[in-house]
Amino acid sequence: MDHLLKNIPDQLPDELFETILERPGFKIERIVSRGHATPAGQLYDQETDEWVLLIRGSAGLWIEEQAEIVVMQPGDHIFLPAHCRHRVEWTDPEDDTVWLALHSTSA
Amino acid sequence: MDHLLKNIPDQLPDELFETILERPGFKIERIVSRGHATPAGQLYDQETDEWVLLIRGSAGLWIEEQAEIVVMQPGDHIFLPAHCRHRVEWTDPEDDTVWLALHSTSA
Repeated sequence: MDHLLKNIPDQLPDELFETILERPGFKIERIVSRGHATPAGQLYDQETDEWVLLIRGSAGLWIEEQAEIVVMQPGDHIFLPAHCRHRVEWTDPEDDTVWLALHSTSA
Repeated sequence: MDHLLKNIPDQLPDELFETILERPGFKIERIVSRGHATPAGQLYDQETDEWVLLIRGSAGLWIEEQAEIVVMQPGDHIFLPAHCRHRVEWTDPEDDTVWLALHSTSA
């Protein structure tokens, strides 16, 4: 057994991406952000579907075709289909933001 | 966007199983227990892998070949490979226990 909020480094110069479990068809990832955002001018345009659950902290997501920034709090989850372009506009500057990301890895 | 702790019925005579997302290779399920346990004499012996994250409440799992009941608190997660026999011994009688269960659906 493991815990999603344990083993977070004191120093976090970059966002931390760790694979929790990988099986045929999917990969579970823990992401820890500490005020990080997607670098200016960049966005995610992924080949595969992703489902994201916010565990701790808060974040603002820009998602293509959504009029406003989507603000996520703990417990919020969202489905980002393949090629739904998105970026993390901000994460909580005062606290760690911990995400659970589930990536479909089927073609 | 949706929230894992919203839309929980006032009355919950049985455990509540809801599919959040199903894609090739996996299914995400929310399970809400209110003091429920696996019925006496029953256990789970599943054909496919499962990964479980406890979101709220608490639970005790009996897992084959583990000497003691595994007590899960929010944030704890555990991988239950196919045919790892297990049962829910108890869930918090005073609060809702909310689980995220990720089922591998690959053969």
